[in-house]
Amino acid sequence: MTQKFGIVADAKELESGQILSPKFNKDGLVTAVVTDYKSGELLMVAHMNDTALQKTLETGQTWLWSRSRQSLWLKGESSGSIQNVVEARLDCDQDAIWLKVKRQKAEDTCHTGRKSCFYRRIVTKDGDFRLEFAE
Amino acid sequence: MTQKFGIVADAKELESGQILSPKFNKDGLVTAVVTDYKSGELLMVAHMNDTALQKTLETGQTWLWSRSRQSLWLKGESSGSIQNVVEARLDCDQDAIWLKVKRQKAEDTCHTGRKSCFYRRIVTKDGDFRLEFAE
Repeated sequence: MTQKFGIVADAKELESGQILSPKFNKDGLVTAVVTDYKSGELLMVAHMNDTALQKTLETGQTWLWSRSRQSLWLKGESSGSIQNVVEARLDCDQDAIWLKVKRQKAEDTCHTGRKSCFYRRIVTKDGDFRLEFAE
Repeated sequence: MTQKFGIVADAKELESGQILSPKFNKDGLVTAVVTDYKSGELLMVAHMNDTALQKTLETGQTWLWSRSRQSLWLKGESSGSIQNVVEARLDCDQDAIWLKVKRQKAEDTCHTGRKSCFYRRIVTKDGDFRLEFAE
């Protein structure tokens, strides 16, 4: 796979230009934020290395880098919850990617068997923090 | 400030319990994803250390950790774009926080003077990637 990213060092050009030049961190990763293309719900936050990002853009399906397994990972490969990318955006300094996706099996988005990884809200009770199930 | 987070090591308990036990990375940070409470639009992706997270939950305004400046940062302190947290959620393995916020000055959310940091989409043209301004 030929690497297709540009290399832009100038901060202004990174922010205002049209060249995709992802700012991978010292582990070679950018943050990937995945939302539902229709509802806008936040589904998951994960990571991508250069290959995962390029495969996502070329195939139109979400590819990630698993930090725990240290391997590439086609989201939904085992669960069937494949994500088709409707739109990809990136942020000002090019270190975070936003994927708006259409899911083939929404109920298995989280490995816990939920529609989103963000199923708990943080609440404060008597000055202490607790988690409350939102769905 | 007394540290108010629990320490849960068991993966199942982290995912299914009610104890807030953030999994800070080796730099002491969790990812913070900020969306508009009403439109659901993704506004920014940033980082929080333990103090930033605790201050956010206690004050109801978005506090972050600036990696470039290596300092705590009240979002909007200089721009006026203070964010009031309507709801805070966290993900299954407790290393990402989702803030739904109401902004005091929406037009200055991004330091580039935009309503969101995600103002460019990635498009493919003749097999190459380009950035296109979405707004």
